[in-house]
Amino acid sequence: MNIAVLGAGAWGTTLARMLAARDHAVTLWDHFPETLETIRRTGRNERYLPGVELPANLCVAADAAVAEADAELVVVASVSKGFREVTKTLGRFGGVVVSVTKGIEYETGLTMSGVLAETAPGARVVAMSGPTLAAEVARGVPTAIVAASADAAAAQQVQALFHSPAFRVYTSADVVGVELGGALKNVIAIGAGVCDGLGFGDNAKAALVTRAIAEMRRLGVACGAQAETFAGLSGIGDLMVTCFSKLSRNHGFGERIGRGEKPEAIVASMTAVAEGYPTARSAHELARKRGVVTPIIDEVNAMLYEGKDVRQALQDLTARDSKAED
Amino acid sequence: MNIAVLGAGAWGTTLARMLAARDHAVTLWDHFPETLETIRRTGRNERYLPGVELPANLCVAADAAVAEADAELVVVASVSKGFREVTKTLGRFGGVVVSVTKGIEYETGLTMSGVLAETAPGARVVAMSGPTLAAEVARGVPTAIVAASADAAAAQQVQALFHSPAFRVYTSADVVGVELGGALKNVIAIGAGVCDGLGFGDNAKAALVTRAIAEMRRLGVACGAQAETFAGLSGIGDLMVTCFSKLSRNHGFGERIGRGEKPEAIVASMTAVAEGYPTARSAHELARKRGVVTPIIDEVNAMLYEGKDVRQALQDLTARDSKAED
Repeated sequence: MNIAVLGAGAWGTTLARMLAARDHAVTLWDHFPETLETIRRTGRNERYLPGVELPANLCVAADAAVAEADAELVVVASVSKGFREVTKTLGRFGGVVVSVTKGIEYETGLTMSGVLAETAPGARVVAMSGPTLAAEVARGVPTAIVAASADAAAAQQVQALFHSPAFRVYTSADVVGVELGGALKNVIAIGAGVCDGLGFGDNAKAALVTRAIAEMRRLGVACGAQAETFAGLSGIGDLMVTCFSKLSRNHGFGERIGRGEKPEAIVASMTAVAEGYPTARSAHELARKRGVVTPIIDEVNAMLYEGKDVRQALQDLTARDSKAED
Repeated sequence: MNIAVLGAGAWGTTLARMLAARDHAVTLWDHFPETLETIRRTGRNERYLPGVELPANLCVAADAAVAEADAELVVVASVSKGFREVTKTLGRFGGVVVSVTKGIEYETGLTMSGVLAETAPGARVVAMSGPTLAAEVARGVPTAIVAASADAAAAQQVQALFHSPAFRVYTSADVVGVELGGALKNVIAIGAGVCDGLGFGDNAKAALVTRAIAEMRRLGVACGAQAETFAGLSGIGDLMVTCFSKLSRNHGFGERIGRGEKPEAIVASMTAVAEGYPTARSAHELARKRGVVTPIIDEVNAMLYEGKDVRQALQDLTARDSKAED
């Protein structure tokens, strides 16, 4: 199959590599031509996926239009901030578009499938999300993920395309739930990182994450998601890894905030984007518009965008809590 | 208040210390007189709670009857295997008994509150459980826990007794749910440890833990628990910590199995009991009796008691899995 992968970060490169290794004709595009040039020249993407060899049949194209020219299926793995711009080229595309980008557009409150409904109205949209640290998938250790679509046949097609014994793909019909699970957990991971940065332990982090799941579910349901989705791979599963693994960027971002660094300085120093940073602002705004109570998202947003003291934020969070479990 | 704490392991000692520091008259008893003698002589319980000073007003008693003589409230923190024997002395006790023991009695399928209904029929029973690594609570870092009782006044009394800014106690009416969450997560933690011991990554562990929550909930509901309880602190919260923290005994137990050690040899070498070992057998039997499908518990049981090869067990687990999320 002819496949275009848009976005040569860790995850886009990992998926492109996986599909090329199965003899699909994969063309990888990225916003930064130098990333593609490095891949072409060295057969690696050392900056984002260090130490991993890429197959020789993986092509790169500096022009998105060229990458998409003969594509029967397009995977979009760009950062959320550039998602609308990147997918504008898909205006006439009628095939399957798989979004693996985790985020919420600030201006519209839309997840990436919502953006695609506007930029690629003819496409059959599938969102794929779950606990999938790219470095581990590249190593070939067992991983499970969810492919969600309102179009069951499209979800099954994506399942068949990606599924292998070490990369198990489950299907779901709850696109918005799967996407919001993936997007919101990055915000919570920043909060969990702050806990760690302050020297709190795993007990505190577990309490935070447990309360967070309820919050994610409330916001998700208000946006039309199914409550159960947040108990699945793209909810609890992804949340757990992002909050407890040493490999998570968003957790690391929060840890540095907990140790007293300024958000803008951390952003400037990072190689890859921590999606929780823009998503905190989008999620906070979305919850406000929908009238959903989201104490953890609110406090993370205040730490990131209002210069709120991290200890004060955690204290206020505790004070807002109730006395019985809900 | 006069309080007896039965069981001087890490958790019993931590709770006894917490209550004594608040000027309650606390008497600590243990099955092993030498543990108590060490505490009396050194003011520490170095074996189970290393590096932690105990308050001078914390008394020890080598005779449980003496410890309980004037007690208005009894905390039971023994291992599950000795729970029935230990609580037999409470036959005429009419006060509040707080069980913090996580396990299921093999012969009866009862949780500890169920055992107490038989051994201490006059007591007002509260079960307290959650993500509470003892070493962290002893350090005073923030922790949250649930006190569950069919007797709301008793749950609130226990909440008031233990609650502090760094040790937040929530109440619940779902005793069996809270207890099963705490007991079953130890079994899952062994499975998660096996994954780590085999060199799998966090993606695989997250997938296992996510599927496990559904399994725990199914078994819990079949035993009369509320489904929501498993999304709370004593469910997901405790499960997360036990599966991801380096401080968990049960996870460490599984890790050693994953690396090829024999269960009996590991048990013999451990200072403290890994409750997941006996609970795997009890939970497997309980699920069989109730007709509940529990693939993860079954495979852990097979690895521990039937000598099943760990790689084979994980492979069989994957094969039993469905294609869509449930």
